[in-house]
Amino acid sequence: MSKPDRGLEPGASIGILGAGQLGRMLAIAGARLGLKSHIYAPDAGEPAFDVAAAGTVAAYEDEAALARFAEAVDVVTYEFENIPAATATLLAKRRPVYPSPLALEKTQDRLIEKRFLNGLSVATAAFAPIDASDAIAPALASFGGAGILKTRRFGYDGKGQAMVRDAAHGAAAFASFGNVPCILESVVPFAREVSALGARGRDGTFRAYDICENSHANHILSRTEAPATIQPATARRAADIGECIADALDYVGMIAVEMFVVDGASGEELIVNEIAPRVHNSGHWTIDGAATSQFEQHVRAIAGWPLGSTARRGRIVMDNLIGDEVRRWREILADDGAALHLYGKAEIRDGRKMGHVTRVYPET
Amino acid sequence: MSKPDRGLEPGASIGILGAGQLGRMLAIAGARLGLKSHIYAPDAGEPAFDVAAAGTVAAYEDEAALARFAEAVDVVTYEFENIPAATATLLAKRRPVYPSPLALEKTQDRLIEKRFLNGLSVATAAFAPIDASDAIAPALASFGGAGILKTRRFGYDGKGQAMVRDAAHGAAAFASFGNVPCILESVVPFAREVSALGARGRDGTFRAYDICENSHANHILSRTEAPATIQPATARRAADIGECIADALDYVGMIAVEMFVVDGASGEELIVNEIAPRVHNSGHWTIDGAATSQFEQHVRAIAGWPLGSTARRGRIVMDNLIGDEVRRWREILADDGAALHLYGKAEIRDGRKMGHVTRVYPET
Repeated sequence: MSKPDRGLEPGASIGILGAGQLGRMLAIAGARLGLKSHIYAPDAGEPAFDVAAAGTVAAYEDEAALARFAEAVDVVTYEFENIPAATATLLAKRRPVYPSPLALEKTQDRLIEKRFLNGLSVATAAFAPIDASDAIAPALASFGGAGILKTRRFGYDGKGQAMVRDAAHGAAAFASFGNVPCILESVVPFAREVSALGARGRDGTFRAYDICENSHANHILSRTEAPATIQPATARRAADIGECIADALDYVGMIAVEMFVVDGASGEELIVNEIAPRVHNSGHWTIDGAATSQFEQHVRAIAGWPLGSTARRGRIVMDNLIGDEVRRWREILADDGAALHLYGKAEIRDGRKMGHVTRVYPET
Repeated sequence: MSKPDRGLEPGASIGILGAGQLGRMLAIAGARLGLKSHIYAPDAGEPAFDVAAAGTVAAYEDEAALARFAEAVDVVTYEFENIPAATATLLAKRRPVYPSPLALEKTQDRLIEKRFLNGLSVATAAFAPIDASDAIAPALASFGGAGILKTRRFGYDGKGQAMVRDAAHGAAAFASFGNVPCILESVVPFAREVSALGARGRDGTFRAYDICENSHANHILSRTEAPATIQPATARRAADIGECIADALDYVGMIAVEMFVVDGASGEELIVNEIAPRVHNSGHWTIDGAATSQFEQHVRAIAGWPLGSTARRGRIVMDNLIGDEVRRWREILADDGAALHLYGKAEIRDGRKMGHVTRVYPET
């Protein structure tokens, strides 16, 4: 890898692990820039296959299929962080994988992630590893009697999480998670939740989007607004934290850092909740609301191309369409102020992200 | 067709005849709205196949393949108007075809098109049918000694056109076109060329984009700017002409009407040059420069869905990247003010449309 990095040529092929809406929007962004996409996922019929030049339907553990996939593409990326480490390592031997396997290692496991963040002097909730249920009581006591039990791995949209107020309840939750390794986190009395989104190029350039603010319902992102209603100095610190994390990982691609904003005695404090080493739901507003979408920005980064402008086009509100909410599509299409995105999922299910709608208002 | 028209449901499939950049950008716009695309074209390896859920590689005259294609999709559209009439008629027996075969009939042949326009009291250049070379001399004389000889069918980007200043030259041009039916048009001393772009929905609603202004180089569109530098009253008339033509064709989908603006004694006069019954190169600025792109608008129209806002985001300049011009892609990517689009064509050739770049400036 000592030759100068000129990046991909137009016409090159991006390999994407995962075939959900994030892979779909990545493939569309790549196509706009003249790149082909090759989707790799275990289940046919997922939405990203419909917009890709090529597809492989195989398990993430299928070494022969992975090797053929690597041979067929010029660079590999992914739409979710729960890729088996062995898969990423195998692919990285054959093709550049961005973000690197190091980013996966530091973000797949909540305990490793929090220790990594604290090592960068980035604040997190207090936490304790829970490898057995008898570790819950002392941790709860040190957190003032309440905490959130989370599986260390494979959690998303509130899955593998439980609010815990006593040891018996904690033991029951631990058992319900299958006694897998967990952590207990202290409860952060946050005023709001924000995301720091940005991309780091192969050359180390970092470009941040304006910090945006998230609202959840039933542990699933419901709305993102940009900009966040925080102090300018807080927004700068949030963006700096994102860049600091990306630099520490020698990161390439889009990164999303979810943070809590706490109204502390000396002003707004930032507590990092988690890192997503990929494009992120809280960045969907950038498609209609920024000069360069997070999807194009990720493609530019992994292609070794210059990053684009992250300038915001106004005040933005992005609403997820979850489950039955997508049935409002016709009414949304009739609203001149709304930009509708549907993910092409065949079946509506409770809690399933079916699409989103973005509204751009003049800056106030 | 007497049941109420509720239009397509998300997940439906759009059949697109043609696999060039227009089909590619239509497929991408459809995907954003949760629709699948099925591309039909004679040559594999064309760029639209790379972003479509399904593809058929077959001749436009292959009736068995056309029948299978029709069965596989919910609606049919096309990216170019030179589809054989028999193809459109065969498909229209099985599925809705938008714009309708009537629009093809009126726009595939320059003589029929001009008579159709004049029948709507829409001004065109003076013209004479040329079925044999001895018809050229009297037509030239009536046009003041100069005219443009054009084949009645299959012309694009200046192909099948010749400026003619004497009968001998005209006869040579006629022969060089293979003695096919032609027309001779008078030379319009135009000040500028503009496009009226708009869409008509299945319910007859028409929404116009702001009139834009076109510059050509070597008979190929080079630059489009929006808005056109014409009087507001002229712009309103241009949009009205577009709507009048669409109504007369009971049109569904995007329509582009190319017009000359002539500085006449009583102000700006509009002379219609030609109608494109499809998305059009002079509308590419709408992807980055309007609330709804022409591609999404076309998809909305043919799907029977509400049309979107055509609001312009600023002052727009769209430059085509033709042939070698596309080699500037890296420099364009590094320009924060530029939005790059590459069409995924494998080979650079002279005169080939390889991509475009759009710049949006604050309104002045």
